Amino acid sequence: MINAIVKIGQLVTLAGPARARVGVELRELRIVENAGLLIEDGRIVEVGASSEIEAKVRPGAEVIDAEGRCVTPGFVDAHTHLVFAGNRADEYEKRIAGATYQEIAAAGGGILRTLRLTRAASEDELLGAARRHRDWMLRGGTTTIEAKSGYGLDHETELKMLRVIGRLNEEGPARIVPTLLAAHTIPPEFLSGRADYVRWVAEELIPEVAAAGLARYCDAFCDDHAFTVDETRIVLESAKRHGMGLRIHAEQFRPGTGAGLAAELGAATADHLETVTDETLGQLREAGVQPVLLPGSVFALSRTEYPPARKMAEAGLAIVLATDFNPGSSPVASMPFMLSLACLQMRLTPAEALTAATVNAAYSVGLGGDVGSIEAGKRADFLIHEFTDYRELAYFVAAPLQPRVFVSGREVRR
Amino acid sequence: MINAIVKIGQLVTLAGPARARVGVELRELRIVENAGLLIEDGRIVEVGASSEIEAKVRPGAEVIDAEGRCVTPGFVDAHTHLVFAGNRADEYEKRIAGATYQEIAAAGGGILRTLRLTRAASEDELLGAARRHRDWMLRGGTTTIEAKSGYGLDHETELKMLRVIGRLNEEGPARIVPTLLAAHTIPPEFLSGRADYVRWVAEELIPEVAAAGLARYCDAFCDDHAFTVDETRIVLESAKRHGMGLRIHAEQFRPGTGAGLAAELGAATADHLETVTDETLGQLREAGVQPVLLPGSVFALSRTEYPPARKMAEAGLAIVLATDFNPGSSPVASMPFMLSLACLQMRLTPAEALTAATVNAAYSVGLGGDVGSIEAGKRADFLIHEFTDYRELAYFVAAPLQPRVFVSGREVRR
Repeated sequence: MINAIVKIGQLVTLAGPARARVGVELRELRIVENAGLLIEDGRIVEVGASSEIEAKVRPGAEVIDAEGRCVTPGFVDAHTHLVFAGNRADEYEKRIAGATYQEIAAAGGGILRTLRLTRAASEDELLGAARRHRDWMLRGGTTTIEAKSGYGLDHETELKMLRVIGRLNEEGPARIVPTLLAAHTIPPEFLSGRADYVRWVAEELIPEVAAAGLARYCDAFCDDHAFTVDETRIVLESAKRHGMGLRIHAEQFRPGTGAGLAAELGAATADHLETVTDETLGQLREAGVQPVLLPGSVFALSRTEYPPARKMAEAGLAIVLATDFNPGSSPVASMPFMLSLACLQMRLTPAEALTAATVNAAYSVGLGGDVGSIEAGKRADFLIHEFTDYRELAYFVAAPLQPRVFVSGREVRR
Repeated sequence: MINAIVKIGQLVTLAGPARARVGVELRELRIVENAGLLIEDGRIVEVGASSEIEAKVRPGAEVIDAEGRCVTPGFVDAHTHLVFAGNRADEYEKRIAGATYQEIAAAGGGILRTLRLTRAASEDELLGAARRHRDWMLRGGTTTIEAKSGYGLDHETELKMLRVIGRLNEEGPARIVPTLLAAHTIPPEFLSGRADYVRWVAEELIPEVAAAGLARYCDAFCDDHAFTVDETRIVLESAKRHGMGLRIHAEQFRPGTGAGLAAELGAATADHLETVTDETLGQLREAGVQPVLLPGSVFALSRTEYPPARKMAEAGLAIVLATDFNPGSSPVASMPFMLSLACLQMRLTPAEALTAATVNAAYSVGLGGDVGSIEAGKRADFLIHEFTDYRELAYFVAAPLQPRVFVSGREVRR
């Protein structure tokens, strides 16, 4: 357990008001130069000039010299499908050769293939696979991860996935926030009875999951290939009644698929939004819904339609940036690469992208009071980077960087 | 020094004819499953079934169990600007806010800024910076690196850069192939006398560098903002007379800027080629010039015009894939990310991309007989990946993977 970090060249605190940052506030990083941090029991107790912190360190305390490097909060990845069996590298190859995502799905591939493999896997096998993905994320500096179920779509496997997420969170060091995504797609058993599936999720699965405390959020995929707005409403209203926070996969391929519903129900987030309209953005802002941008899935599907992040920032929305890590549309585990995509493809500044990947993301998963910025009272989750200027995070695209990663003041090596 | 690798699940040898692969041959990976390698004095002496190799291992030999993982050759990065002082993360931020590369250059930024910093840096400072970039490349699995001068553009600094490249090669473990790029841009001192600069490069610098054995290749940037075709010809004809191999930055922004000249002079490579025409591709094929594709610079400049790789492959050209690592247009050190860009943006298959990044790249830097594939007689430069299927290299985009990296049979840790 570390007691202090001193001689930080550039400390990006992101300290500030007790809420996610909106619009132009996104740019305020609250940087302290020549800084130090005092840590007790895994929490930050003081941020100040390095010389002041050095003077307060007790004899025998464990102190790290940051040697002038840049320190930022650990990343919060607010949208991942962390737990699944197998991978789909062969389908990736087919897509490159010209097959569409829909054609691959029609041929028994895609999400239903991952569903079959995940149902067949034991809980320990799933845990092993999830650990491997979690370790990649930790290496890249992600210290908090939202993780969804949704490759089971039956009672046994959805609970199995949520138990794996719970075990991962307990074993640490990454914090894992569990989300029920039983409304990911219609499972094969219900293709001719989709209303029955929606009813089962809303009336049986959600109450059971909520009672067991297995998920903090409930998500639903509102899309022409998944659930209609009406079906999504049935699922999410039940989740809301049972005390879960709400997230929606919305407007990825067509406007009118879920973002309005997110505003109506007061969801925590509306995720994707590649096709969102100006009018709907206004509704999200009024309702305080945070947009979660997932540029990895645009990139990895070789698409060019990124969500209108610049417009969202100007409209005063508290943007979040996440990987959407999953075996199909976004086999991308790296938050630094999301920062590069945000800058190069969506014209967010490096400061805006970093804010979206840390403090804003923390608020979007209900942990804004605990992580996402470096200030007294919060968990000591932070990164000592190899470089001295935070902009290098987005600038050195896909660099095999090895930040030193700390969670609650303990260094993580993976 | 390792003597054998056994229990390789998927050994991608890329073994074959003593030349770069062309067109559809690109796809031939020559995979051996359940394989082993026997190594002596840093070279591969036998490739075979794991059981056969295990039977031949002498008592006391150092043997690595690959535990069923995938093994490929180390990457050969055939186009980098590895040596420079400073970085341009602040200009990256300006470009995102809308400034063009040309506007930044006009305001004293861009390549001329790197020139000033590189001239001012000591040889040891440059070596330190280059080691950092080289270490990133090694972490990502790059074992051979072509490195250019070109941020000096005066006698002292061009020689200083080439000495740094030479020292990096001598200290190892990465192999570094030195290229003189004095014709990178017109230096400020010669803006009103560009013919004098071209003459100095051709008549004085090249003979001296060649006599000192400081560069194996000579490169020139043929572009509207750099050197005309006629100026480029003067430089490269001199280099050819002095026994250097030739490379050209060609047709990046406009057709007719250098690829035809590459064919005429029998250059080893024509690099960039984003705007190359079908007719010129035919000339390159006839002349045996290898196209070097640099998708990192397209990506990092937020451009969408990638070189026509699919067309090149169908036309039977022996494509090479490289990072173009440099502080301005391509601050990207990762060859695995180049594989992802090649697949997702240029529609090369994972097999074609891997061929372009290994055996073809090795031939393009004159080391085809020594590295780039895994077969008896070649250097034991190879990677033990974290995964079991080579396609995962391109599929898990920008993943913080940590392959085990071997150069001449010695494991590299960076």
